[in-house]
Amino acid sequence: MAHSSGRPHVVIVGGGFGGLYTARGLAGAPVDVTLIDRKNHHTFQPLLYQVALAVLSPADIASPLRRILRRARNIRTLLEEVVGFDLDARRVKLQSGAERPYDYLVVAAGARHSYFGHDEWERNAPGLKTIEDAIEIRNRLLLAFESAERRALLTGHWEPLTFAVVGGGPTGVELAGAIADLARIALARDFRSINTRTAKVRLYEGSPRILGAYSEESSEKARKQLEELGVEVLTGRLVTAVEPGRLRVGDEWERADVVLWATGVAASPLGRALGVETDRAGRVPVEPDLSLPGRREVFVIGDMASLVDVNGWPVPGLAAAAIQQGELTARNILRDLRGEPRRPFAYHDRGTMATIGRHRAVAELGGRRFSGVVAWLLWSLVHVALLIGFRNRAAVMAQWIWAYLTRAGSSPLITEYDTRASIDLAPDTQRA
Amino acid sequence: MAHSSGRPHVVIVGGGFGGLYTARGLAGAPVDVTLIDRKNHHTFQPLLYQVALAVLSPADIASPLRRILRRARNIRTLLEEVVGFDLDARRVKLQSGAERPYDYLVVAAGARHSYFGHDEWERNAPGLKTIEDAIEIRNRLLLAFESAERRALLTGHWEPLTFAVVGGGPTGVELAGAIADLARIALARDFRSINTRTAKVRLYEGSPRILGAYSEESSEKARKQLEELGVEVLTGRLVTAVEPGRLRVGDEWERADVVLWATGVAASPLGRALGVETDRAGRVPVEPDLSLPGRREVFVIGDMASLVDVNGWPVPGLAAAAIQQGELTARNILRDLRGEPRRPFAYHDRGTMATIGRHRAVAELGGRRFSGVVAWLLWSLVHVALLIGFRNRAAVMAQWIWAYLTRAGSSPLITEYDTRASIDLAPDTQRA
Repeated sequence: MAHSSGRPHVVIVGGGFGGLYTARGLAGAPVDVTLIDRKNHHTFQPLLYQVALAVLSPADIASPLRRILRRARNIRTLLEEVVGFDLDARRVKLQSGAERPYDYLVVAAGARHSYFGHDEWERNAPGLKTIEDAIEIRNRLLLAFESAERRALLTGHWEPLTFAVVGGGPTGVELAGAIADLARIALARDFRSINTRTAKVRLYEGSPRILGAYSEESSEKARKQLEELGVEVLTGRLVTAVEPGRLRVGDEWERADVVLWATGVAASPLGRALGVETDRAGRVPVEPDLSLPGRREVFVIGDMASLVDVNGWPVPGLAAAAIQQGELTARNILRDLRGEPRRPFAYHDRGTMATIGRHRAVAELGGRRFSGVVAWLLWSLVHVALLIGFRNRAAVMAQWIWAYLTRAGSSPLITEYDTRASIDLAPDTQRA
Repeated sequence: MAHSSGRPHVVIVGGGFGGLYTARGLAGAPVDVTLIDRKNHHTFQPLLYQVALAVLSPADIASPLRRILRRARNIRTLLEEVVGFDLDARRVKLQSGAERPYDYLVVAAGARHSYFGHDEWERNAPGLKTIEDAIEIRNRLLLAFESAERRALLTGHWEPLTFAVVGGGPTGVELAGAIADLARIALARDFRSINTRTAKVRLYEGSPRILGAYSEESSEKARKQLEELGVEVLTGRLVTAVEPGRLRVGDEWERADVVLWATGVAASPLGRALGVETDRAGRVPVEPDLSLPGRREVFVIGDMASLVDVNGWPVPGLAAAAIQQGELTARNILRDLRGEPRRPFAYHDRGTMATIGRHRAVAELGGRRFSGVVAWLLWSLVHVALLIGFRNRAAVMAQWIWAYLTRAGSSPLITEYDTRASIDLAPDTQRA
């Protein structure tokens, strides 16, 4: 259907933080908005690791985009995949062959992890960006315990499991701490033939310290808290290959029953489809107002954008930055319509925080540093407050309180699993 | 590992109602139990349709078997697939090639729907027996609305959707009512370009009335309540073929965007692996004590068993019957050990009930018949009480109250979906 209301038509590509907050900023404004995503839901990525660790259910942290935006009558949501652009004709090309015209285009298709040119590693070391990733990781973690139990029950032999997390940023730190808790606490009383507490959790980081974006003090506190949970923090260790059951660290092969990937940034390939030179990570350099150079009607925001903000700071690839960029973009589009000048993007660092296991964290807020339980409480408040939709907020709070009281994950379900895939009754040998 | 405690070893195949209640009945008894299932969780099947309709999450109605049984130190849970039996050697054969010896064997592997020799229909008309089935059905229902919205948005054309449910038993009635509510209420405010309320829901039943196991009065009340929700109840209409986008009813092809299958019983193929003649549905005829003829140490229970109980009633394939059979089997094994005679199975009909939409139902309890809101309240109480595990019970109650207050499904998420699979922008034509 051709666009015919006479009002400017804004097409937003991607329903992550950047795209969703652009849409919200345009709700009720004198524009027509089409939000296009290939998923039907927005995912609250900061809590994805809790879905992967079976503490939360997908519905606790994901909501359908059209449900979130149902009250905004000027916004339509379209479940489709964008495959390219005709910038001169101002059209978005869709997987189905159809095209969608626009007056303003906001490209916010996000990023995945980068495997540094070795995409074949992904099969053996999945990253955590979508609900489907979280379910896949959950299945792998739980199946590792089930396989060990099966081997122990049927053969009498078992060896402690080894879990490897590659990348010592916030996601890697959160995953490592949560896996340690899963093995030490949540699953400990469920298994009979193995002792899940003997599982080894290793966090590999290529640079000299974890949480490189934090202060050295927070980084050191995070390491100490991880080590208290039994996590081996291996800094200055570059992972150079991943194969089933093992990974290579420098020149040495090390065993790992499950490897998870939490490093590197590969922006959506839609960045290249914009016809500009992208940086090494596939990100698009943008103007201070987040527009594409030479295309004032096209914005690129969130993890896809590369810029140094008006205060001279490189903008980090965080949810908070994407949210702020979405909000600014919506306001700049409305400023255009009123004939006012656009504002440049200035990143407001409202703080960073990462949880470490069940009730510890490190946090840096407004120049102050917190760690331990206080940081964890701060983290909980902030993340529940940010969750989209009241129902989810209440449900997540209830789950956390329940998990805290019972010292157990909510419901470690394995789904979509083929028993034939992973049965291996050979005595457990050092595969390295 | 050979069994070496000196205590009798009971192997239970299947963690549905029959197997789980056998295991519970043996918790703490002087036997060693191995419960084998190819899923890691018990599924509360009576509420599966609410997962399919996005009212509940999988974790609300499924719990890991080893979590449910964690306090029973004499029970081990094994995630494995049983492929056969060596009844003379008293061994269970596993997918992995290993075998598991037993002193008592309880086979409780359940049933799926039967496609009357046309298994190829399943692809176009999935049944509802597992969490994976529920997610698949949810995705098909939600994608039908998304596809219609996409077509309307991009081409300006759309036609009302048609949903077909085949089989007028309790599952078919519950699915049809819930789909009507999804279209009329839960999704109604989410879509912009289509009117979801115009969706047609058709319930096909080959026999002259729906809910054939209920009284004619209840059956008629169920029909009336379904029709109030806008469901077309088509009795005496035999579905003779299913293809993508349509189904044949008698000799006529009728259009259907989504077809769901809720009829026929095909017991687990493990019945035939027991080396006895099974009935048409693959069920195993058993002795009054539920043992295999000529094999006192082997029990077959739940949907896999075929018997007329001690009072002369054919035992129905219901959760309640499987639970009672599991409880009796555990007690009979313990009676054996004490040198007491076994008791025969007598089915206690504690009532039957089926919901119709959001807050209606029909129920028959102790010779009394209920319908409407009263029956729905009874249904809610009974099903929440039966849910395994306190956390789930509280969570499900909360979801229902929330759904009731907001008139919305909890979170209609589409997962594991490939956009390329269902994009069809051809003008909507009568495919029949």
